[in-house]
Amino acid sequence: MTNAIFYHAGCPVCVSAESQILDIVDRNKVELEVVHFGEGQANRIAEAEACGVKSVPALVIDGQVLHINFGASMEDVKNA
Amino acid sequence: MTNAIFYHAGCPVCVSAESQILDIVDRNKVELEVVHFGEGQANRIAEAEACGVKSVPALVIDGQVLHINFGASMEDVKNA
Repeated sequence: MTNAIFYHAGCPVCVSAESQILDIVDRNKVELEVVHFGEGQANRIAEAEACGVKSVPALVIDGQVLHINFGASMEDVKNA
Repeated sequence: MTNAIFYHAGCPVCVSAESQILDIVDRNKVELEVVHFGEGQANRIAEAEACGVKSVPALVIDGQVLHINFGASMEDVKNA
């Protein structure tokens, strides 16, 4: 099994990114955990930083970080 | 079926991101196309921009853009 952790902090723009990632991931191959720093999981921040997470949302796949979205455009913010 | 297009330009750092995305996507649910601008597919750039792609690599899922990685660290470049 591939191990994947999706870290985020609950912003509305990125919750939609999250749901898309979760939808397309093959759960037969990937054991996926979602960590929301804003909901009692702030104690996972150090762990995320140790993996190389520089921004959220981020998906860590077998220890390799994929940063998703580098920022939200004003249009995204307006439509969020 | 969900429609997804992965756009990239072939940099070595991001090819590894690509392979990870491709590995975890559920092909039973997602029809996935990979577009490499550097390999004769530069004619797809306008289409990507029209979808809102601002940087590569990017994954467009049913018309919604997820930008992946906002830049490569010098460490990534050294290890690429």
